[in-house]
Formats: sequence, structure tokens, C-alpha cells
Amino acid sequence: MAEVAVLGATGYTGIELVRLLNAHPDAEAVFLSSDSNPGKKISEVHPQFSGQVDLVLEPMQVEKIPGSVEVVFCALPHGSSAGTVAELLKQGFRVIDLSADFRLKEADLYREWYKLEHPQEQLLKEAVYGIPELYRSEIAGARLVANPGCYPTSTILALAPLLNISPAYAGNIIIDAKSGVSGAGREPKQPFHFPECSENFKAYRVASHQHTPEIEQELSRLAGEPVMLTFTPHLVPMIRGILSTIYAGPIRSNHEIELNAIYSDFYENSPFIRVLKPPALPETRLVRGSNYCDLALKVDQRTDRLIIISAIDNLVKGAAGQALQNMNIMFGLEESLGLEHLPC
Amino acid sequence: MAEVAVLGATGYTGIELVRLLNAHPDAEAVFLSSDSNPGKKISEVHPQFSGQVDLVLEPMQVEKIPGSVEVVFCALPHGSSAGTVAELLKQGFRVIDLSADFRLKEADLYREWYKLEHPQEQLLKEAVYGIPELYRSEIAGARLVANPGCYPTSTILALAPLLNISPAYAGNIIIDAKSGVSGAGREPKQPFHFPECSENFKAYRVASHQHTPEIEQELSRLAGEPVMLTFTPHLVPMIRGILSTIYAGPIRSNHEIELNAIYSDFYENSPFIRVLKPPALPETRLVRGSNYCDLALKVDQRTDRLIIISAIDNLVKGAAGQALQNMNIMFGLEESLGLEHLPC
Amino acid sequence: MAEVAVLGATGYTGIELVRLLNAHPDAEAVFLSSDSNPGKKISEVHPQFSGQVDLVLEPMQVEKIPGSVEVVFCALPHGSSAGTVAELLKQGFRVIDLSADFRLKEADLYREWYKLEHPQEQLLKEAVYGIPELYRSEIAGARLVANPGCYPTSTILALAPLLNISPAYAGNIIIDAKSGVSGAGREPKQPFHFPECSENFKAYRVASHQHTPEIEQELSRLAGEPVMLTFTPHLVPMIRGILSTIYAGPIRSNHEIELNAIYSDFYENSPFIRVLKPPALPETRLVRGSNYCDLALKVDQRTDRLIIISAIDNLVKGAAGQALQNMNIMFGLEESLGLEHLPC
Amino acid sequence: MAEVAVLGATGYTGIELVRLLNAHPDAEAVFLSSDSNPGKKISEVHPQFSGQVDLVLEPMQVEKIPGSVEVVFCALPHGSSAGTVAELLKQGFRVIDLSADFRLKEADLYREWYKLEHPQEQLLKEAVYGIPELYRSEIAGARLVANPGCYPTSTILALAPLLNISPAYAGNIIIDAKSGVSGAGREPKQPFHFPECSENFKAYRVASHQHTPEIEQELSRLAGEPVMLTFTPHLVPMIRGILSTIYAGPIRSNHEIELNAIYSDFYENSPFIRVLKPPALPETRLVRGSNYCDLALKVDQRTDRLIIISAIDNLVKGAAGQALQNMNIMFGLEESLGLEHLPC
Repeated sequence: MAEVAVLGATGYTGIELVRLLNAHPDAEAVFLSSDSNPGKKISEVHPQFSGQVDLVLEPMQVEKIPGSVEVVFCALPHGSSAGTVAELLKQGFRVIDLSADFRLKEADLYREWYKLEHPQEQLLKEAVYGIPELYRSEIAGARLVANPGCYPTSTILALAPLLNISPAYAGNIIIDAKSGVSGAGREPKQPFHFPECSENFKAYRVASHQHTPEIEQELSRLAGEPVMLTFTPHLVPMIRGILSTIYAGPIRSNHEIELNAIYSDFYENSPFIRVLKPPALPETRLVRGSNYCDLALKVDQRTDRLIIISAIDNLVKGAAGQALQNMNIMFGLEESLGLEHLPC
Repeated sequence: MAEVAVLGATGYTGIELVRLLNAHPDAEAVFLSSDSNPGKKISEVHPQFSGQVDLVLEPMQVEKIPGSVEVVFCALPHGSSAGTVAELLKQGFRVIDLSADFRLKEADLYREWYKLEHPQEQLLKEAVYGIPELYRSEIAGARLVANPGCYPTSTILALAPLLNISPAYAGNIIIDAKSGVSGAGREPKQPFHFPECSENFKAYRVASHQHTPEIEQELSRLAGEPVMLTFTPHLVPMIRGILSTIYAGPIRSNHEIELNAIYSDFYENSPFIRVLKPPALPETRLVRGSNYCDLALKVDQRTDRLIIISAIDNLVKGAAGQALQNMNIMFGLEESLGLEHLPC
Repeated sequence: MAEVAVLGATGYTGIELVRLLNAHPDAEAVFLSSDSNPGKKISEVHPQFSGQVDLVLEPMQVEKIPGSVEVVFCALPHGSSAGTVAELLKQGFRVIDLSADFRLKEADLYREWYKLEHPQEQLLKEAVYGIPELYRSEIAGARLVANPGCYPTSTILALAPLLNISPAYAGNIIIDAKSGVSGAGREPKQPFHFPECSENFKAYRVASHQHTPEIEQELSRLAGEPVMLTFTPHLVPMIRGILSTIYAGPIRSNHEIELNAIYSDFYENSPFIRVLKPPALPETRLVRGSNYCDLALKVDQRTDRLIIISAIDNLVKGAAGQALQNMNIMFGLEESLGLEHLPC
Repeated sequence: MAEVAVLGATGYTGIELVRLLNAHPDAEAVFLSSDSNPGKKISEVHPQFSGQVDLVLEPMQVEKIPGSVEVVFCALPHGSSAGTVAELLKQGFRVIDLSADFRLKEADLYREWYKLEHPQEQLLKEAVYGIPELYRSEIAGARLVANPGCYPTSTILALAPLLNISPAYAGNIIIDAKSGVSGAGREPKQPFHFPECSENFKAYRVASHQHTPEIEQELSRLAGEPVMLTFTPHLVPMIRGILSTIYAGPIRSNHEIELNAIYSDFYENSPFIRVLKPPALPETRLVRGSNYCDLALKVDQRTDRLIIISAIDNLVKGAAGQALQNMNIMFGLEESLGLEHLPC
């Protein structure tokens, strides 16, 4: 039983880590930190855990983490996470960081999109971008895994096989993404107050969302040339789930079957990617609570545009589930261990 | 007080007509038909009307409509509506048809997209497409108004000023539209069963929705050349509202201000179109229950793409409200009469 | 056109007042205050008003209110409202106070349930409790109307005819009430954060909600003897609406028809109370956005218990709509003026 | 690995059984029947299962069930289930029946509440009522377990310890219960059409719900005398969950602590019952997807009424989860095996 720690255990990503770890056969959370509720049991803050997870929340101090811990999950806000990660590495811990701090390779991009000087620029090069379907071998030996954002997971997985076969599609990508409200975090704010987001639908941060450069970085690497795309996030009145509708092209309509085969091959050894058989289409409820990413491809025969649709649970494959998948790989375990539960 | 009739009064479009007519100062519903509930009071089928609208529902027979009726609203299913409309016109009634039967000018397109021979092809030419913001003068004198679909209303209004200034934008349009569930009608079906569409988001009829040719027809007319676009509808877990995110371009980013001015000018005399001042963005709750169409324009400075976002209430501006707006124009009344209520 | 002012215009009660006043034929809001957004247009804070209500929000200073104002609606938090009301009265304004400050006749009860010394105890006697169905004549001449709470409106209207015929039912009343989330106000808080109240149902403040003494006060007056009851509020994942299920008795089952007649008679001249014909039952959607209170009576034939169910829109009949109904009466207008719109 | 069969595998109870069995370490579904979709894979009807559960759905014929099957779960409609169960028993299968057919011991009550002659009256005596917390030893050896209804589970568990200590509380029980929409089953019907139950709350089958006699039967047995109570179900706009608010009494307020101890003792060896420490209160989200039943007790100090609140997931502890718990006991396994997953 590997021992792990979760820093920032009471946010939505934190409690999803706790939930999933509790069902994991070979890993166990032995240390949980929370600066908002130190000294309380996690089951007092989140009573769904009562009877099973009753660990006391510790203040966020690296020196309190037991030396027996093999991986630390850092679910702290971006900006403040980087310093903690640096300290953890110095103490010899392996780290899976769920913040945005180590996802971008270029400190300049971090500054531009997050409006912050990067606090630990020297670690950017070492950090492995934690999409197992693309970086399995690098993750296996990594000291620091930068767990991807929810939107990037949903869209990079949808586009990777396409850009892998040809950079020709790089210039013409539009991502229209839709997320449930838990993606905004646990802190109450006006736009996420029930009476203002229930029975409502809207776009936000149009052409300016901070996940844009993260998506472009990974797609550029796959395409072998710079990808610059349009990304529009929307808020859906549901708790969990991201559905991304992605437009690319041009592509000839008779290539739909071929493309499906390319995608199926690309993800042949990736147990969490389900390339749907046409005409099936993804729905967020069909992946809810699970680590699956469902994908469908459709060519608009009239306009030769390729439409790719992907669905994930933003808190699982888009955050905590993917983090455990990375942990499994780091530990040399079966990638899907503890993550095989069905959607619910 | 002008007398009007509503055929198909118990569906969602029908009851929205009844609701809005009840608040109209110069028009009154005197005849309601329903083949599913003939003989019952409408307030027995829809108890929200109790105490105010207690008309008895008649079976659908044109000869039962009082001769004093000045306009008949036809909220019948497509395919079956056309024959009734023909009969109504023969009897001398003016008609606002809320079905899809008279929206497309080409019978071939109707056959292709609705999988039906058009039952009254000879009337297609006469029918006026009922978007008041584009066809005010034609509507004023029309015998037959084809009330637009909900998605077409939302998207044509969003694109009309753009294509009006130049056909250059015609070739590169993608519409990613999201609708509340009432758009699917009142008949219970599996995909709209609460446990299957609540806490869920999905695309449907990708690149194959029957509203596509209606949108293209009107945009082609405005552009002066054929428009062929990609249209992807989605289902949002909310009752009312359509938000359309539309991609066009390329456009230089410094044209954002200019474009906003063009839009504001285009809709200067259209009381229900609100061109939002940047950086405000439409939300469906901000138009819920009202006849407004909110529009926002944003140029993605990195990719030179134009993003247009529009929000309407699918049952009001997307159906019954627009029908009343058309009626007002046909009667020579103020366009906004009885439709000034605020969103709720 | 009577001029009125709304203090606290940007909270949910405030904007509902603004919405309803905008549709009122004989009254007009000429002064809106907001301490959170002074200097902004209300349509900047609440864009649904754009194009129709563009008044600038003033800071809350009584001396800024134009002398031409005939009634001031006070939608301020309890505790702080009382002082403002006193000042308004001193300046000669008539006041409809939507806070809890003047609803309880006993300052002791206020202290006990609101944990505050009453700031203006001397006004308690003069304040008229603003349920028009019970206090029409007193409201007509009142200087100060205490607009009832949402739960009390829903439950007092449901029980008034029963306790009016006999105090026998006073001793055995249980109220199990369920409210939409807008009842909690507009300030974002953890329990009303979308991911924590969507797809969730719970009770709160069990047997300790501050609306309890308000309900008991009015029912005691009707019964002619002290009523002490159990009140359990619950939170429903919807925006608007209160449904109260009330248990009383014992009553013999053959009295159901008789009781329905008593209720119908009691509310004969009350246009907003709809006593449903059995077996119809209230639903919150059937009153949504309207000023109706729907009531149904059912005797459990096996246990001789009377079950009364009532449904209102908490923001309309439970707050702003009732306030306008009171205003109409104070102005000598038709009680239902400007409030006849149908549910939506 | 014990082999089991699920009859009626595509309804909500059926797919919940499949979901839970898939995660069970010692049991495996080897036979699934569906009369609505015979010949299809279950993952074609319910794509969330893709990649993990791809069994082909069989038509409902007892002779097709492999002899190696140790327990058959019958998730068929009431009325039609009884005959199948009789045949299964004849073939030597042990059966857990999730319909209502074998829950009531009196065929008369079945006739009265289900409007049907009982098709297999002779089996009523043998059937064991499947609440493990009350009937563990009987379940262990049972051939036929009648799995309880969702409302009865929620309310019997809430009242059992109380009636166990004294029949004094039997005469004065009111149950006000609220259920998510999945409780109504998977067949689309008007009241469960999204636009009619979202943003809505209502009571239904007031004082006439068919679960009433089931609740009374079990409480009467515990009390040792006939219990007759009032039961009011309500529909909540959420997918899963039942919260029951139960009124009993009179009870002196200083007994709250004592009662909590009695409840904790009663459920000491019941891993799925969580008696909450005051002032914590149950919420349906805190048990969602899990087999927990959360309970809280509160005495209304002003009226000496006891208020008991319970929360379950109607599809898990209220149906499929409890069925697996029963199966575990029948197999001599740990009661909680395969059911320890946390709420989600």
C-alpha cells in the first residue's frame, strides 16, 4: 500500500482525489492538508466521507508530511502551488501538481496568461505534462508531473491523433467547449450562485481563457509546427462534465471511416479513451464520475469540415482521475488500477 | 380588440402564444384548437391559465373558426400544417404559420431535409419569412407569414448585418448552437426524460439538422451569394433559451469597434435587438421569457476570427413572441405592443 | 402615474420590484438605491433591464428621495431596515417594508428569533401586516406596511380559512415547506453554490427558522388563541417557488367538500388565490413569475388528517408582487393592477 | 466468483444492478434480460457501459438462464414479476425480487393498493422482506427476498429504532418524503418530461401512494401494534435521492441525546446507516451513488415533536445497492462487499 499526501484536500479537486484514493487498492492517503479548515476532520467539512475517511486536516507545512509518503498531490491554487512544489521536490518527494504552474513550458506564456512572474521557472523544463496517453514513458520516471487542465485534457485528446498524422490541420482549429460549474472551483462567487447559473447558459472569457496556450503548446508539439486556435468556453447548468465540440479541416468526407480507424489505433492501448462507433455521440452523463474520455468524429459532407466531439468528467479525467492514472504509471502499476468504476 | 385563433394550442408554442396574447392590449384569442384534448378547457390541460384563460379547446376544423378572426396562428406539426394553412387562406384568413412548412422557398430543400414531398408547393412563393427585423414591409401586407425556426432566428439575426455589408464572410461560417429542452416540444421522449437530460450535455444531429437550409437560405439572400455553413446543435439542461456561438472571418481585430457600430446601426429601429456594449456577453437568463435577442461581437485578436454570440428565449423570440411581433406589423400596430415585458 | 422609490434595488427582491413596476400602468420607479453599486445604472448590474430600465443607482440616503415619491419600498436587510423606515416616515413617506423588521408585533419575539434588540419598537404597533387577503382595509390607510415573509405568505394563506372557522385546529399543525434557492438572497454563499445545491435536497434550520413566530402570530390572531406549530423548511434545487405541505386535524374525511367550499368562499374576492378543484394539486411551475397562490385540500381518509398544499412564487406573491398588491390598495387602485400576467 | 442474472436489465434499477455488480469482487452478472431490446448489447442501449459490460440482452425466458447462476435479480414491473419469480423458484434459483410483488404479507393489501389480484399468493409467507438491518438472519437463508421500495427503505430505517423501544409513538406519524425523478422509472411520461419537472416542485398521490401499506406493515411489526400513518410523496427536480422528513411524538425535548444513543446502538453493526452527530443534517448529495442511509434526529423543543430526517440514494440503498447487500448476506459474504464506494 503506497502512502500518498493530498495538499489542498477540501477543494473540489482535493475531495475527488480523496474519493478516488479511498477506492484504490494499492494507494492510501495518509496526509491531507487544508489551510481553510486545519484541525477538523475532513468528514466534518465534507460529511459524505463520514465513516470511511476521517483523517484530520493539517495546515499546509511541507515538514509535516510523513517521510513514508511516496507521492504528493498538490491541489493548491496556481501561483501559490509552485513554491510548495519546489520545497516538496527538495525534500525528495515526487509530486503530481494539479495547479496550472508547471503546465506551460514557456515562462513568458505563463506571465502573459496568468499575469504572474513564474515563481519557479527553473522547474518548467523538468516537469512532465501529465496526459498518460501521450507521455506514458516520461511520466513513469518523473519527479514532477504537471497534471493538465480540464479543458486541455478534453481537447488535446480529441485532436492528438489528427495532428499526429499531419500538420495540415493545424491552421484551422476552433474549439467550442462547455463545462459544468464544478470547474469553477468551490469558492462561492456570483456567477456560480445557483439562481444565476441554473436555467442559464453563457460563454465566458471568449478568446481569452488561460487554458488556450496549454492546448496550443501540446498540439504544436504533436503537429511539429505552431498551432494557434480559437477557444471559447461556456458554462453549462450542471455540476460535472465537459463537452468540447471541435472544428477542423478541410477534410474530404470519404475520410470519416479512415479517420475513425486512425483514432482507434492511436488509442488502442489507452483503456480510458473510447472512440465511439458512428453514429454514436458523446454525452457528459455517459462518462460522469468515471475516468473515460469519449470521442466521436463526424465529417460535415457539405462543407468538408471535421467535427470532433469529446466528453469527460472535468473532476475525474479532467483532474483527479488523471492524476491517479499518472500515479499508477509512476508506481509501475496497471494504468487503470482503482479507476475502473463505471459512470454514475 | 382584434380576434385571433390559435391552432395547436396545447403544445409549448401554443401555450406561449396563449400566454402572450393574454397580455396583449389589442388582440384576443377567441378560438383555440387541440386535437389531443378537444372539449376540455385549456386551463384543465395547463392549470397555470386558471382564472384567466378558460376557453374550451376545439377540434381542428377550419370551418369552426369564427369569421371575425383576423389572424390564425398555426402551431401544428410540420407536414400536417401545410394543408390546414391552404384551407385557411382559401377561407380568407390571414395566417402566421409556426411550423417549418413555408420557411424554405425551394420545395427540393424541403424534401431533402424533411423527407417529405411538399404538400402545398404553390404557396411557397407567396409566404413571407417572418423575421420582422429583415422583412417588415413584406410582413405588413402578407396573407401568409412563415414564422422562423428558433435556431434560425438566433443565428440569422446574429449574422445579418455582417453579410449585409459584404459577401466576403459567406464562406467561412460555423454555428455552434445550444438550446434548452423545450425546443424539442412537449411530447415525452427518452432523450428529454428528466433523468437523461438533467446533469447532461450533448450535441445532436451534428451537421444534419433540418434548420440548416433555412439559415443558409436567408444568409444567402443577404450575402447575395450562396452560403453553405456548418451547424451543430446541442442540448442544454435548462427549459428555455438558445445561445449561439458563431465563428466567421477572417476579420482584422481593429475592426471590432467598427463592427459594433455597424450592428447597432443595422438594428437601430429594432426594439428587440440589443447589441451589447463590450465586454458584456449574452446569457440566456437575461432574455428568458422576453422577446429580446441579445448580441455580442468579439474578434479573436490572435486568429482574426470573428465570434458572434446571440441569446434568445426559444419560445418567445424563437417562436410565439416573434409571431406576435409579426401580427402587430400585419395589424399596423406598434411592433413591440404586448411584448415589452422584461425577462424573468 | 404614481412615483415610487425602491431602496435596495439590486437584491433579488429589489429587482423583482423593478421588473413588476416596469409593467405597472399607474406606478413608476423614479428612485433606486443600492449601497453595493452606487453610481452605476441598474442595467449595468442587471443587464436584463437594458433598454427599458436604465436608472442610475443612488447611495442609500433618505434625503435624496424626491418629494414627489408616494410610496417607498424598502428592500433592505433586517436590522438595518428599521432605522431607514423610521426616517422615511418622519419625512412623510408612506413605506412598504420588505424586511422582517416590522412583521412581529412583539419586540421580545424579534429579539428571540433575530438575536437583535428591536431598533424601532415604537413603530411595531402601527405597522400593518401586509397580507391583503386578510388586512385589506388596514392596508388602505396605512403609513407603514410590513410585507410578509415568503414562507409566512405561503402558509398563512393556506391556513387562514381553517383557523377562521374554528380554533379547534390550532393545536396540531405541522408545516413542511420547500423553497427555491432565490429565497436565500443574492449574496453568494457555500450552501447556494451551484455544485452544492444542484442535484441536492435538504432540510435546514429545522424547528428553528425565524419565520416561525411570524406564522404563529397571524394564525393565533385568526384562531383567537395561541398557535404553536412545527415548521421545517427545505431547500429545492430550483430558482423560484415555495411549496408548503401542511398537516392539521383531526378532521372527518367527509368534510373535504365542505372545507373546499369554505376556502372558496373565504377567498371569493381575492383574485390571486386559486383554490384548486380536487383532485388537482399545486405545482410551483404553475405559479412561477406570477402573483398567484394555489391551494389544495385533501383529507387523509385513513388517518383523518387534513393536508393542505400551497404554492407561490417566493419572489412575487412571497415578496415583490405582494408589495405591489399592497401598493395598489394604498393607492385605491384595483388590487390586481399590473399583476395579472400569467405564470411563465 | 458467484454468477448472477439480472432480469429487466435496462430499466434504472436494472442498470444500477449492472453498474454495482461490475465493481463487485465476488459476483458477476452472466445473464441479462430485456424484453425491450433483446439481441442488443447492453452497452448499445446504455453506452456508459462500453468497454466493460458488453453482454448481449436476452429475451425474458427462465429456461435461458444458465444453471450456474446462484441468484437471480428480478427487476421487472410489479404484477408481471410474480409469475417469473414463481418459475425461477421452481427451477431452483434463489431470487431477489425488486418489484413490489412480494413485499406485502397480505394479499388483500396488495389488491387494495395495486388494484390487482395477487398472482402468487402462496409465496407471500415465504418471502423475506429485504431490509438487512432488520432481517439479516432471515435473509441469509432465504430462497426469495422481497427487496423493499425506495420510500419504505428511507422511512422504515428512520423509524425502526423508535418503534422498537415503544409502541407509544405508533399513533402519530407523518411522513413527508421527497424523491428525485429516477424513482419514477425510465419510461418517458409527461410529468417527468424535463420542461415540466425541472424548475418545479410538487406533491403527488397525496395520502394514496402504494408504498404506504409496506411502510405500515414493517412499522407495525416493530411496534407490536397496528401503525397507520400519513404519507405524502413529492417530486424534486434532481435525478437521484430521497429525503424523508418524519414527524412523530410527543417526546420530551431532553430526550434528544438519549434518542441519538438509542439509534446509534440500534445500528451499531450496520455499516451503511450513519446516525449524524447533531446539529448535522442529511442531504441527498452526501449519499448520492452510495449505499448509505444518513439519519438525524431533532426534537422541536417548543412542541415536543420529534423530527427524523433520512437521506438515501433511491437507486442504491433504495433499490440495487440494498439488493446487493442482501445478496452478500445470502452468500455469506461481508455485508458491505462491493458497496463501500463513497458518494459522488
